[in-house]
Amino acid sequence: MPKESDFRLIEAPLPALTGGQLLLRTLFLSVDPYMRGRMTGIRTYADPVEIGQVMVGGTVGEVIESANSQFRLGDLVAGYWGWQEFATSDGKGLQKLDTTIGPPSAALGVLGMPGMTAYFGFLDICAPKPGETVVVSGAAGAVGSLVGQIAKIKGCRAVGIAGSDDKISWIIRELGFDAAFNYKTTTDYVERLRELCPQGIDCYFDNVGGAITDAVLPLLNVRARIAICGQISQYNTSKPEPGVRPYSYLLTKQARAEGFIVIQFAARFPEGVAQMAEWLKQGKLKYRETVMEGFATMPRALIGVLRGDNTGKMIVAIR
Amino acid sequence: MPKESDFRLIEAPLPALTGGQLLLRTLFLSVDPYMRGRMTGIRTYADPVEIGQVMVGGTVGEVIESANSQFRLGDLVAGYWGWQEFATSDGKGLQKLDTTIGPPSAALGVLGMPGMTAYFGFLDICAPKPGETVVVSGAAGAVGSLVGQIAKIKGCRAVGIAGSDDKISWIIRELGFDAAFNYKTTTDYVERLRELCPQGIDCYFDNVGGAITDAVLPLLNVRARIAICGQISQYNTSKPEPGVRPYSYLLTKQARAEGFIVIQFAARFPEGVAQMAEWLKQGKLKYRETVMEGFATMPRALIGVLRGDNTGKMIVAIR
Repeated sequence: MPKESDFRLIEAPLPALTGGQLLLRTLFLSVDPYMRGRMTGIRTYADPVEIGQVMVGGTVGEVIESANSQFRLGDLVAGYWGWQEFATSDGKGLQKLDTTIGPPSAALGVLGMPGMTAYFGFLDICAPKPGETVVVSGAAGAVGSLVGQIAKIKGCRAVGIAGSDDKISWIIRELGFDAAFNYKTTTDYVERLRELCPQGIDCYFDNVGGAITDAVLPLLNVRARIAICGQISQYNTSKPEPGVRPYSYLLTKQARAEGFIVIQFAARFPEGVAQMAEWLKQGKLKYRETVMEGFATMPRALIGVLRGDNTGKMIVAIR
Repeated sequence: MPKESDFRLIEAPLPALTGGQLLLRTLFLSVDPYMRGRMTGIRTYADPVEIGQVMVGGTVGEVIESANSQFRLGDLVAGYWGWQEFATSDGKGLQKLDTTIGPPSAALGVLGMPGMTAYFGFLDICAPKPGETVVVSGAAGAVGSLVGQIAKIKGCRAVGIAGSDDKISWIIRELGFDAAFNYKTTTDYVERLRELCPQGIDCYFDNVGGAITDAVLPLLNVRARIAICGQISQYNTSKPEPGVRPYSYLLTKQARAEGFIVIQFAARFPEGVAQMAEWLKQGKLKYRETVMEGFATMPRALIGVLRGDNTGKMIVAIR
């Protein structure tokens, strides 16, 4: 588990803008579990953040100076300039925000990376069919809370697993999950899943791994699909802890487990954003943000998201 | 591990034939690892064999009496009448053998269930591309020995894992695997795989599970495909033994693990048999049989196949 002392707040003068550049003031910083993976020093699908580098992350900000004809003062943009209060940019990779479809911070959540992760990861990897049972772990997180709602939109039974009674109450009463349980107060996950999934499990959208995923395996139906989105229970282990190997279950059920990274769907993000925005407008999709205040809270916010302190999307706001 | 005393040899009079029936004399009995799964009392994708029932299995025999116009005395047929020296049949599910494309026993191996398992399991689930590295466990078995050869036909690098130096020598020198190692005399499987797969692993065709499969995970390439065909190392455990969970590896590599049962490809068996027969004729595919003699050896043959005593396809012949 990271400690606050693993981070250093560094003040530096802003560089002068050169031709084509613009200056951004950060308004919202995204806080996501994947960030832990960038802190291992190991290259996975992305380069690690080296000690001394600016920590990576999604950002929303305002253009406060511009020497770039594409951007004007006051434009709101989303980007990936990381943990900085101000940043210069040549405009590449910045996305101008349309605040008629959602507030600026939604570009870090339902209309941004977590939204695309839920939309493409669930619909493409799980390929749910109406009437099927979908189990979601990390079900009150930024991604999981959307997956369960998309499952309902697609006519599935949505069963969530989360880590507090408040989260369970939120996903059932407000988001429309059919059933859910608090893994921190449940001893026999298999037994509880068996009660909540009387028709077995057709799709499992996994954000957490570990013992929760082990418990899903005996309940898989024939041709079940597991989308591996995250493994938050394993992010602070130096190597994967021993557990149940899934192969015998996958074999007898002709089932599939597939890992994915949201970036693999990048070419189709416009489709995903349009559909999520439409569902938001129709009231079929709800979301919540856990907002912490002030740039200096970033380390604490990341530790919090790894502990599951957030309900919905964790964000740090800078006023 | 089953014991010979778990089986009972029962003699019974042959029933008289009724209209449309025929009488079969068994010539060859198939001996396959999956049979162990039928002896657990647990329903998986198939009903278990209950105590007192005839043990199931693939068979080749000769028609020695016929009251069925579709079959004549002396016809050679393959079927699934199980561990019996003689059997009656109404002809359903029997397949007449064309001995111009292979000897009768090939209907239990390269042109039968193991051949179709290798052909469809590898080509459909792994979807290999030329130049990719394919690792096969149980590589000297009935299925694995064919998978490695199909990998070579498809332009891949084929790396095998098997349990004796003789098996390793056979699959490299006679079958054309690029590399292989004996897991019984190797201590560090990951290190050995790293040496033999300098470009990483794109496809893994798994017949064994356990520690061998654990060792494949760190070497998976981006978008790797794992076909789960068998888990012979786990068949005599009452529940899966703890091991490495694969999810973190699948996630960071956007990789997939999928179980399959050959029966799911049944509608396409004619395509598979035709292609395997063609490759046999062209000399691109070789196979070997380990033949034990006499009906009473069946229990010992099954124990042998679970221990890996066979090279290629295990068969019991009855003269």
